[in-house]
Amino acid sequence: MFDKITIIGCGLIGSSILRVVDKKKLSKQINIFDKSKEASAFIKNNFPVKIFNDLAESVQGSDLVIISSPLSSYKEILLTIKSSLKKDVILTDTGSAKKEINKIVSNLNLDNVHWISSHPIAGTEFSGPESGFAELFNNRWCILSAENEKENHQLSLLKKFWEALGSKVKFMSFDDHDYVLSLTSHLPHAIAYSIIRTVINNDDKFKEDIIQYSASGLRDFTRIAASDPTMWRDIFIDNSDNILKVLDRFSENLEEIKKAIKSKNSDKLNSIFSSTRKLRKEIIKAGQETDKPNFGRK
Amino acid sequence: MFDKITIIGCGLIGSSILRVVDKKKLSKQINIFDKSKEASAFIKNNFPVKIFNDLAESVQGSDLVIISSPLSSYKEILLTIKSSLKKDVILTDTGSAKKEINKIVSNLNLDNVHWISSHPIAGTEFSGPESGFAELFNNRWCILSAENEKENHQLSLLKKFWEALGSKVKFMSFDDHDYVLSLTSHLPHAIAYSIIRTVINNDDKFKEDIIQYSASGLRDFTRIAASDPTMWRDIFIDNSDNILKVLDRFSENLEEIKKAIKSKNSDKLNSIFSSTRKLRKEIIKAGQETDKPNFGRK
Repeated sequence: MFDKITIIGCGLIGSSILRVVDKKKLSKQINIFDKSKEASAFIKNNFPVKIFNDLAESVQGSDLVIISSPLSSYKEILLTIKSSLKKDVILTDTGSAKKEINKIVSNLNLDNVHWISSHPIAGTEFSGPESGFAELFNNRWCILSAENEKENHQLSLLKKFWEALGSKVKFMSFDDHDYVLSLTSHLPHAIAYSIIRTVINNDDKFKEDIIQYSASGLRDFTRIAASDPTMWRDIFIDNSDNILKVLDRFSENLEEIKKAIKSKNSDKLNSIFSSTRKLRKEIIKAGQETDKPNFGRK
Repeated sequence: MFDKITIIGCGLIGSSILRVVDKKKLSKQINIFDKSKEASAFIKNNFPVKIFNDLAESVQGSDLVIISSPLSSYKEILLTIKSSLKKDVILTDTGSAKKEINKIVSNLNLDNVHWISSHPIAGTEFSGPESGFAELFNNRWCILSAENEKENHQLSLLKKFWEALGSKVKFMSFDDHDYVLSLTSHLPHAIAYSIIRTVINNDDKFKEDIIQYSASGLRDFTRIAASDPTMWRDIFIDNSDNILKVLDRFSENLEEIKKAIKSKNSDKLNSIFSSTRKLRKEIIKAGQETDKPNFGRK
């Protein structure tokens, strides 16, 4: 599919891409840059790739360059590689917020570079190259965004690449992406962090009990809140406008529930709790979920 | 273990108890009362039990009576059965809030009745007798509460009963139970409902996209928010004092995150997101969770 691919940043996502590219032979050569010596050593010992200590060198001659590092590192990376990019290279990334990084790329006025952003909606609560696995993208959505949404050779090629990785691909504008994801992913994360901080108060004399009896209700939040802190810090800063807006909406909904509890309004609570049940059915129908109890967990 | 057991209310929990009692022959006779004709018919067709249309009759001569219906139904049930209970019967329940129901039982001044409350911390997002299964309580906590916590014959017997059902048993006062559960279970539910109501706004032109791209972050909340509305309505009314208190604490924590996002305070966000990671390790250590990525889901 490609002669040469460069992956910049080989954590959970980058190393999972690497695993599929290697397994399915999607590129004749794979270049890797990771600023961590340990990550580079791990990759070198386990995969047939070329490891670079020099970032600019790592992208030379590559047909596809994938930035898979925290959002806050993009600007420096782009400034370092911009003069070394091959003519007509496809430049992409795997970040979870798009509008701000698109501004950065646009301001660089890159010539003969096809910038198409990717967001594979996949992940676990683990990070680092050891955590990656080739099946991570299987049957998961990957959202592509570009200034010019017109189908062209590079867009088709990148779409095929993600499909080869196992993903289902959709196109969305940078703005729409950031709004939709602020609701489906960023809001739940903000809330999960707040819950954990509320529940685990080190001064609480019941701390041990709380951890011991953490029912499945709390358990799911801890998984969310255990994700990579740097990645999430960057998302919250880059997509702050949308996130603050939906957090305000959330607070309004929470106040409504509080009011119903305070006044012991049975009918209101019943209607609130019944309304949310429907949504789950729609999500199951949309194929994002199993209808087995407890997700089929044991 | 018992000559006669009565289960009042045969939904997810009641019917799961029934399944183990039947499978392990924990009682010579099993009496069932469920106000739903459909539930009674399903139970009658599938298990060797005696179905009652008369609630008071169903408890006559029983050594163990288990109320497994919504909290709001307890008062009427107790008033109906109180004169029919056998001398020295063990009376228990499976509700998720304890203080209020204990007040109701205390006010009845039942003679020769051993009231020991049970809370099996187990469940799925499904309800009804078809949803039950014998393994539901396996390796899950069951919290017992009684006015007199002194170990006695009846307390030991009820403990052995839950252990036979697969549970790990702990004792806790009514008050402590309600505080601990308000944090570990009731708070997460209140939040999950608010999130779903925030995310799914039927007027949103992106509604379809939002459902389609609901990442695992949102997915976990929809499972929580899909639980039985009546059960949760009753819990929120019975445990309102604790729940309102922890919801206020939650709102304060959320405001702190909002403030950090507004001021784009990287350091603050980093420290918030890092602090929550530790808790998950403690929960995994406490044996409530697997450390497999994504809970070992496929």
